[in-house]
Amino acid sequence: MNKPNKISIIGVGLLGGSLALALKRKRGVRVVGWNHRASSRRKASRVVKVARSFDQAVQGADIILLSSHSASIAAALRQILPFLDKQTLVMDVSSVKGNVVAEALRIPGIEKHFVPCHPMAGKEKSGPSHADPALYEGRTVFLTPLPKTSPKLLKRAAQFWKSVGALPLVMDPLGHDRQVALTSHLPHLLAATLVSLYGRQQKKTPLLGRAVGSGFRDFTRIASGNPQMWSDIVEMNSRELRPLLSTFRENLAILERNLGKGRPSFWRSFFNNARSVRERL
Amino acid sequence: MNKPNKISIIGVGLLGGSLALALKRKRGVRVVGWNHRASSRRKASRVVKVARSFDQAVQGADIILLSSHSASIAAALRQILPFLDKQTLVMDVSSVKGNVVAEALRIPGIEKHFVPCHPMAGKEKSGPSHADPALYEGRTVFLTPLPKTSPKLLKRAAQFWKSVGALPLVMDPLGHDRQVALTSHLPHLLAATLVSLYGRQQKKTPLLGRAVGSGFRDFTRIASGNPQMWSDIVEMNSRELRPLLSTFRENLAILERNLGKGRPSFWRSFFNNARSVRERL
Repeated sequence: MNKPNKISIIGVGLLGGSLALALKRKRGVRVVGWNHRASSRRKASRVVKVARSFDQAVQGADIILLSSHSASIAAALRQILPFLDKQTLVMDVSSVKGNVVAEALRIPGIEKHFVPCHPMAGKEKSGPSHADPALYEGRTVFLTPLPKTSPKLLKRAAQFWKSVGALPLVMDPLGHDRQVALTSHLPHLLAATLVSLYGRQQKKTPLLGRAVGSGFRDFTRIASGNPQMWSDIVEMNSRELRPLLSTFRENLAILERNLGKGRPSFWRSFFNNARSVRERL
Repeated sequence: MNKPNKISIIGVGLLGGSLALALKRKRGVRVVGWNHRASSRRKASRVVKVARSFDQAVQGADIILLSSHSASIAAALRQILPFLDKQTLVMDVSSVKGNVVAEALRIPGIEKHFVPCHPMAGKEKSGPSHADPALYEGRTVFLTPLPKTSPKLLKRAAQFWKSVGALPLVMDPLGHDRQVALTSHLPHLLAATLVSLYGRQQKKTPLLGRAVGSGFRDFTRIASGNPQMWSDIVEMNSRELRPLLSTFRENLAILERNLGKGRPSFWRSFFNNARSVRERL
């Protein structure tokens, strides 16, 4: 990899903070961070050197990481554009890529710098205080290049992710969005819906909490995610999520029709299949 | 607690095996186990002394634990009936209680012995090789007595569960079934449905596995449960599960109608509410 002198992390939260910690271990790398809010800069300063100003944070950077929600990436790209050197590589880490790519295409010249990325890494807890230098180890990072992204730039992006232990995988943005709709966004909606239903029932039957076991906790863990981030995600990926939700509802209707009809072989085959898929994950 | 001389565990799997391990630590207690299949008896012998015959297993027992699926409890009660001493306490650990209670009411005399129970404890992995003496510690155990269960018998059952660290809670069987439909059976159906959908998609797009993160794994963990057991559970609790599935589908339809309509405040409030309920669990 082109040894980067300066790596700027704009938006030092869980993902950005974890990158900072992973990068700080390396030689020949200078990491600086920036958050727009002063209170967030104070928190960030525990895991990374915080620049004195936004300009100072991005000026002369070899690599700029935009570590914020999908909905904010286009504005961030415009904001950093005047500061980019010829060789600056820009990446983001947001969860929905179709809109990010579409908006980036409207920013002249950005394709020489920007490689949209999405690491399959995270926790329910946000903020740099939960940052973990091993967060990316062994995790897939999707790279969804723009149509004119040069192979050289794409390779630099891939090498950057390898350097923090991640497994880069190039994919078209809409294919990416369809996949994460199924593996991430739909489960999030299901968990949040179940938890909401539970909350309403629990008001009527306070002892309901005693019927909560480890399975329910595991199942609903993702519902603790950041509400603003998830609001952005479902809005930006609504095109993929709508037909998927519809399919899921139809699948539930099939189950409903088979309940209480004395069809043990239907149920055994349903649960057998689910278990065998789950065990191959 | 009346110090039991002999505790018989009929069906030494994960739950029965864990009870055996927890009880073996106590003084003045003799635990014997029994499984109907010879191969299961061999596995059971690693965690408990296995009786030489079924008759020997249950004869003269102070406490008999029926540790098998809901669908098998009525037959097991009839099978042990001839062996019960006056003071024998019988409990089960199965997940659906309405049917178990209804069937028990048809067995004359059983109400002097049988207290239906359901510990909120378990793992996805079954079998005595995963048994854990701490499995019941701090876990709720629902006790759903028959209409004529004596307070004294109920108290013995409660004290038994306390002795292995569990928290007994008396509830009517249908209230129990309604609660676990929401906290256990519905999540299981949702996880299995999602995993099945994933399995179908993955055949078409093999790279889908790369989009699986820790959230998807947590969410779908329960789908690894024993297919025969889960088939019994959903069949036996279909009365509660059907309206719940229907409500859940309607809730998903509301989400679907709000997707892609530019309604960030709807989504923020939905996710905010889910997070706050989840964090109070």
